[in-house]
Amino acid sequence: VIVTVTPNPALDLTWPVDRLTPGETHRVPAGAARAGGKGLNVARVLHQQGHPVMAVTTSGGLTGTELARDLAASALPHRLVPVAAATRRSAAIVDAATGEATILNEYGVNHSAAEWNELSDAVSASLPRASVLVGSGSLPEGADTEFFARLVTDARRLGLPTVIDTSGPGLLAAARAGAHILKPNGEELAAATGDNDPVRAARVLIAAGAGLVLVSLGAAGMLAVSAAEPSQHRRARLPRALCGNPTGAGDAAVAAAAFSLAVGETAPESILRRATAWSAAAVLMPVAGEISPRHPELAAELTVELIDVREETR
Amino acid sequence: VIVTVTPNPALDLTWPVDRLTPGETHRVPAGAARAGGKGLNVARVLHQQGHPVMAVTTSGGLTGTELARDLAASALPHRLVPVAAATRRSAAIVDAATGEATILNEYGVNHSAAEWNELSDAVSASLPRASVLVGSGSLPEGADTEFFARLVTDARRLGLPTVIDTSGPGLLAAARAGAHILKPNGEELAAATGDNDPVRAARVLIAAGAGLVLVSLGAAGMLAVSAAEPSQHRRARLPRALCGNPTGAGDAAVAAAAFSLAVGETAPESILRRATAWSAAAVLMPVAGEISPRHPELAAELTVELIDVREETR
Repeated sequence: VIVTVTPNPALDLTWPVDRLTPGETHRVPAGAARAGGKGLNVARVLHQQGHPVMAVTTSGGLTGTELARDLAASALPHRLVPVAAATRRSAAIVDAATGEATILNEYGVNHSAAEWNELSDAVSASLPRASVLVGSGSLPEGADTEFFARLVTDARRLGLPTVIDTSGPGLLAAARAGAHILKPNGEELAAATGDNDPVRAARVLIAAGAGLVLVSLGAAGMLAVSAAEPSQHRRARLPRALCGNPTGAGDAAVAAAAFSLAVGETAPESILRRATAWSAAAVLMPVAGEISPRHPELAAELTVELIDVREETR
Repeated sequence: VIVTVTPNPALDLTWPVDRLTPGETHRVPAGAARAGGKGLNVARVLHQQGHPVMAVTTSGGLTGTELARDLAASALPHRLVPVAAATRRSAAIVDAATGEATILNEYGVNHSAAEWNELSDAVSASLPRASVLVGSGSLPEGADTEFFARLVTDARRLGLPTVIDTSGPGLLAAARAGAHILKPNGEELAAATGDNDPVRAARVLIAAGAGLVLVSLGAAGMLAVSAAEPSQHRRARLPRALCGNPTGAGDAAVAAAAFSLAVGETAPESILRRATAWSAAAVLMPVAGEISPRHPELAAELTVELIDVREETR
């Protein structure tokens, strides 16, 4: 079972509009309300692929009740820790013509110390049957930035590999704790390390203790920088641009990385290929948390370039 | 007691943003969730002014539960008719710098025939103690456009005056039923009558059976066209533009008109003056459903012009 942990889930509201015009009033159909948050998207992708999962997250208030109802309706195995503050909302306003999404992400209210402990206990209770532990998404404002790092430490003690997708100081902390795979995007990586060069920045995380860093670069593909290959890295990309909805593409990459670890696929090139293909296959789907069945074709189609440090600095 | 009827309420979500940029992701604080809908704003203004009110509306689903909680917290006397479909949402994204609001209004799901009957029964149960009946806001898609007209007919049978603020065919139907006061804005009036001249268009509603038509024209003030004055109309305006939040300004005008009728203030000029002053006083408040205590000064400050038809056509 791949266990995903989502400490700051959201009730995702999606409204289609003909054209979003700031300052105007728009009449829209009733929006879809869906359980959201990166770790839930990761769990949905794995569940869709038939892999056993357990999504651990929190819910509070009436928005949390809506989140719980949607999770129950989707039949995704989950464990909800009740919290006092209402689950945050995330609103996506999607242009019907271009598919362009305008997003409002609420910060989320921090959990109490007792609630954080209950969340950790819920994760611990899921670990004995786990094959891989995934920690995904932001932390509420004011949360302890070591939360994901502690999950990594707990998992390592049980010999479990981890995949962490977060940003800010929590990303560095997860590296220092020895996360097996980190999956920042280019911006998150630059913000966390202060280095705009993605390969050099990924090496900072490797030096801190991470095993493999996958850097998602949108249409420019994905980089893999591994502790096992100190003088080389890999870059994967599709020969053509894909049109679709990029929301959840990063989560599909995380799902792929966790899947690789769960099935014993440990070579950086294999993980990179699967992560890039699943990520591209997510772009082809209208909602986050699903990938197109065309992902094997995409995996075959993409090119992986091996780049030598000496070549690059020449 | 002034009874307000809101057949299509909304859970109003408000998010402040620094600057809304279509296509971008914005991090925002948790939005306020508030019971919304024009008739609820009318009732809030009257309640704030210390006038007895009863707000009759519907609630369904978890959004309806949130609406009910907010109404209970605000101590506004209300009667909720439970309906099966979830109460619609309305989202306002408010630019922190300019105060400009970008609004998404969900249509709302139509009530079943049985639910419409229960709403009518709830209104009927409130009428014996009523002084004025107010019908406000849109109808859900597919609703019988005669709904407000039937309320007018029922109220007239009991000798009760009515104020109706709606749009489309429902506005004409309310006029034909003999509504005492109609309060369209300029656009709604033009759309319902097909005439872009607001005075001529208001005369169409008067000819159909309405007693007084107040046409709100935003910063350009308000017109009063009365059945009692076939060759004259009045235009009120403030000597200066007001800065603030125009959301709910029309609802404050409706509240003022109902208040006038409740206290026996029937002269068109008095009603127009109060409606314009309360509407302007609503602009000065950050949220809909409240008016500034400065409304008596505003009433004294505004000018009312009496315009003769013969003068105009000269």
